[in-house]
Amino acid sequence: MMIDLNSDMGESYGAYTIGGDDEILRWVTSANVACGWHGGDPSVMRRTIQRAKELGVRVGAHPSYPDLLGFGRRVMQITRQEARDYILYQIGALRAFAGALGIMLQHVKPHGAMYNAAVKDRELSLGIAEGIADAGGDLILVGLPDSELIKAGREIGLRVAREAFGDRAYNEDGTLVSRKIAGSLITDPEAVAERVLGFTRGTVKAITGKEIRIEADTICLHGDTLGASTIARRVRECLEAAGIAPRALGEFVR
Amino acid sequence: MMIDLNSDMGESYGAYTIGGDDEILRWVTSANVACGWHGGDPSVMRRTIQRAKELGVRVGAHPSYPDLLGFGRRVMQITRQEARDYILYQIGALRAFAGALGIMLQHVKPHGAMYNAAVKDRELSLGIAEGIADAGGDLILVGLPDSELIKAGREIGLRVAREAFGDRAYNEDGTLVSRKIAGSLITDPEAVAERVLGFTRGTVKAITGKEIRIEADTICLHGDTLGASTIARRVRECLEAAGIAPRALGEFVR
Amino acid sequence: MMIDLNSDMGESYGAYTIGGDDEILRWVTSANVACGWHGGDPSVMRRTIQRAKELGVRVGAHPSYPDLLGFGRRVMQITRQEARDYILYQIGALRAFAGALGIMLQHVKPHGAMYNAAVKDRELSLGIAEGIADAGGDLILVGLPDSELIKAGREIGLRVAREAFGDRAYNEDGTLVSRKIAGSLITDPEAVAERVLGFTRGTVKAITGKEIRIEADTICLHGDTLGASTIARRVRECLEAAGIAPRALGEFVR
Amino acid sequence: MMIDLNSDMGESYGAYTIGGDDEILRWVTSANVACGWHGGDPSVMRRTIQRAKELGVRVGAHPSYPDLLGFGRRVMQITRQEARDYILYQIGALRAFAGALGIMLQHVKPHGAMYNAAVKDRELSLGIAEGIADAGGDLILVGLPDSELIKAGREIGLRVAREAFGDRAYNEDGTLVSRKIAGSLITDPEAVAERVLGFTRGTVKAITGKEIRIEADTICLHGDTLGASTIARRVRECLEAAGIAPRALGEFVR
Repeated sequence: MMIDLNSDMGESYGAYTIGGDDEILRWVTSANVACGWHGGDPSVMRRTIQRAKELGVRVGAHPSYPDLLGFGRRVMQITRQEARDYILYQIGALRAFAGALGIMLQHVKPHGAMYNAAVKDRELSLGIAEGIADAGGDLILVGLPDSELIKAGREIGLRVAREAFGDRAYNEDGTLVSRKIAGSLITDPEAVAERVLGFTRGTVKAITGKEIRIEADTICLHGDTLGASTIARRVRECLEAAGIAPRALGEFVR
Repeated sequence: MMIDLNSDMGESYGAYTIGGDDEILRWVTSANVACGWHGGDPSVMRRTIQRAKELGVRVGAHPSYPDLLGFGRRVMQITRQEARDYILYQIGALRAFAGALGIMLQHVKPHGAMYNAAVKDRELSLGIAEGIADAGGDLILVGLPDSELIKAGREIGLRVAREAFGDRAYNEDGTLVSRKIAGSLITDPEAVAERVLGFTRGTVKAITGKEIRIEADTICLHGDTLGASTIARRVRECLEAAGIAPRALGEFVR
Repeated sequence: MMIDLNSDMGESYGAYTIGGDDEILRWVTSANVACGWHGGDPSVMRRTIQRAKELGVRVGAHPSYPDLLGFGRRVMQITRQEARDYILYQIGALRAFAGALGIMLQHVKPHGAMYNAAVKDRELSLGIAEGIADAGGDLILVGLPDSELIKAGREIGLRVAREAFGDRAYNEDGTLVSRKIAGSLITDPEAVAERVLGFTRGTVKAITGKEIRIEADTICLHGDTLGASTIARRVRECLEAAGIAPRALGEFVR
Repeated sequence: MMIDLNSDMGESYGAYTIGGDDEILRWVTSANVACGWHGGDPSVMRRTIQRAKELGVRVGAHPSYPDLLGFGRRVMQITRQEARDYILYQIGALRAFAGALGIMLQHVKPHGAMYNAAVKDRELSLGIAEGIADAGGDLILVGLPDSELIKAGREIGLRVAREAFGDRAYNEDGTLVSRKIAGSLITDPEAVAERVLGFTRGTVKAITGKEIRIEADTICLHGDTLGASTIARRVRECLEAAGIAPRALGEFVR
């Protein structure tokens, strides 16, 4: 059983601090590092990669729409070519810092609204996948299982990793329950940890109570919510108590 | 006698077009490509490198202060570490496009106010040189002869190239005559071409009439001034008529 | 018969110049001035209003999504409250320059993708209308006839002006023919002028050849297309030859 | 004895929160509200003014260089005209929100590096003062006593207010001790409160121990430092215990 734990990192910007990076970094195996377009700046990028390197956490790019004001959480109708170019730009910028610190980028996970839009938008997904292919280096594309993004990645010839969310409720069809619906967010550390254990067996209980199948290579642990660090630690402990040592994507995704 | 001809390129942005890139690219051997901070955007970067590749022109990064509104022409008091991080970010972003198109970056020439400030600002110059060193790949740093920037590059262990300006008047001490002074700009193509020929022999006539020594590896040809293309062509023709074939920096700078 | 001629203006930014403002300003009665979010900057705003004042052209705000990179031409999924706040911010900024030059703002016309999205998006339209209402000063909202934007404006209690396009083909239902379809753009100055004359009688010939009704208070004259100035002049001449003197919106819209 | 207490406010941006605005607003009489260029965004501006209004705190603009990445803390070499236009733009944007909420702007205090640069830079100071004059409405300019900024304000015919800092050490000549020097920051609430009381009598003890004269109309209370709220409350209490009720600038500055 191979599973990776990932979290979004390095989203602070200039004088602004966001997220509990230092705490969360202790429990994950892969860090998605912001590239300056929705958060992150060059100095934050350097420090975040440095810290991930010290803790042995693998690093990936977390590119976004150009929307600092909206923190990348608003869909923008960009073309496939724009998506390709924006992704390549951001990967390149982050990779320069990784290279300066002597490490390789492992993966790319689009941020926020781009990630969500890519679930159903084939053109956007192809642009993202092409930008990753342009970057070379056998980067792994992280997306929602069965999304257009994952399909585009496979089509372009990328390695792909499917992501599950321990703190989000699922519909019976495997999609995430909208955040607007009560019960969509799971905040109890024990409940999250139990669900993550379920993912390692390929199952999760949908919001209706029915057990459904979810195939996941990596679990997202949020870093900016209340109690995020407690949840992350508890997930890691439970996995290890079950004899499952989380492994970085690069070690097992083909 | 080895001499390179360089020009700033790819400074268009979104819906905005600036510079006569296509014309100038035909006459130069090295292109300094904007990286999105004073001009340029990801799509412009891709197209500019593509065009330079087609014409066999070598490509370098043209990083800037973060000042699109001021087109990078205003000094900002950033720290050495910020300079280092900003330079590395921009080189990385541009290199990703170069890599996608199968070419290597050759050099880095800071843009506008950063270039000018680095003539005398040692801390800024060290930051710039460190950012270039971080990027690896044996990039050549382009700066004004005897500037702090060139000194910092040598100190950090970079290859450096000294730049001269065919269309700018010089003071007797080898500095450029301020643009505010009458006669500081030379606009006659023949006069510019003659001065460039002089640079290949290491000399130029100062504004006072006295002949002074200027050691230059590369000559800057501006692309955004009136008659820029005519001047560039005339310079190239005169050099070749004198039996001097311009060569890209990477072929001769050590 | 009352008709206004409007054009988008002041979209240059820093070192970047776009549009033939000076030419077009001679033929229109209302100028839509960019507010810095898709184009325009504080100095451009001042100069544009100054020039409009000199020529007796009335001035309005031309606010946009926050998307300089995309020139405001890409839809962004912002909330109603964000739309309201973004509009108010931009009106305020522009009004400060108008006030400094001793003139009043006359109208507000959303730019590009925001204008288009507001044709069908009621929530966005309400946000825009609320932002204009917040600004006070009895500003006139300009939008497409029968759009959600015009409806929202009326609902909020704003004065509204309906806009027609002399250089765009119409479908039989009064919507604009997509730019992707051949024949959607009319570039012959005589043809445009003839259509504008038709608008003053409330009719236009649809792309199918059928005559349809279009009620318009103002005609948009594009400033950034080839031959824009020629078209604008021809339109003005034909109107005046027909005894129709264009009047600024503020003089007749209630 | 008339004294105003001011604090910088509304510097949060999008997803980023900074400063303890709600706490500090309870103790001050004037709020300097960021205008989106170093911090603040349209929605933050609206909320900040709304809250200030509820608490009866007067509102002013806190404009900045265009440098979100550097939080406005880095000097940029802009021209007098640029300063004028930048200031006017930001005042206008903020005033629109004030107007929508039914209140008048009271004052303008430049932010960060612009405030500091304006102590000695006459051209910059004149540009700032001209921008404020352009805005009309009899706005009060806040600056350091004896600064070029205050001189420029007087020269242009503005009302001016001189600012003192309760938590900063002074040199004997009335300038602030550099933050790099030990003892430059005073963090003990009692000590700060005592110094503020001194300012109401026109004196403060310099870092050398010598008592010097400082004429101040307003005292800056920082909102983003540790214990900021405790200090602000203590200052207010001490003033009131001494029979001095802080008053907003607009009530007494001529």
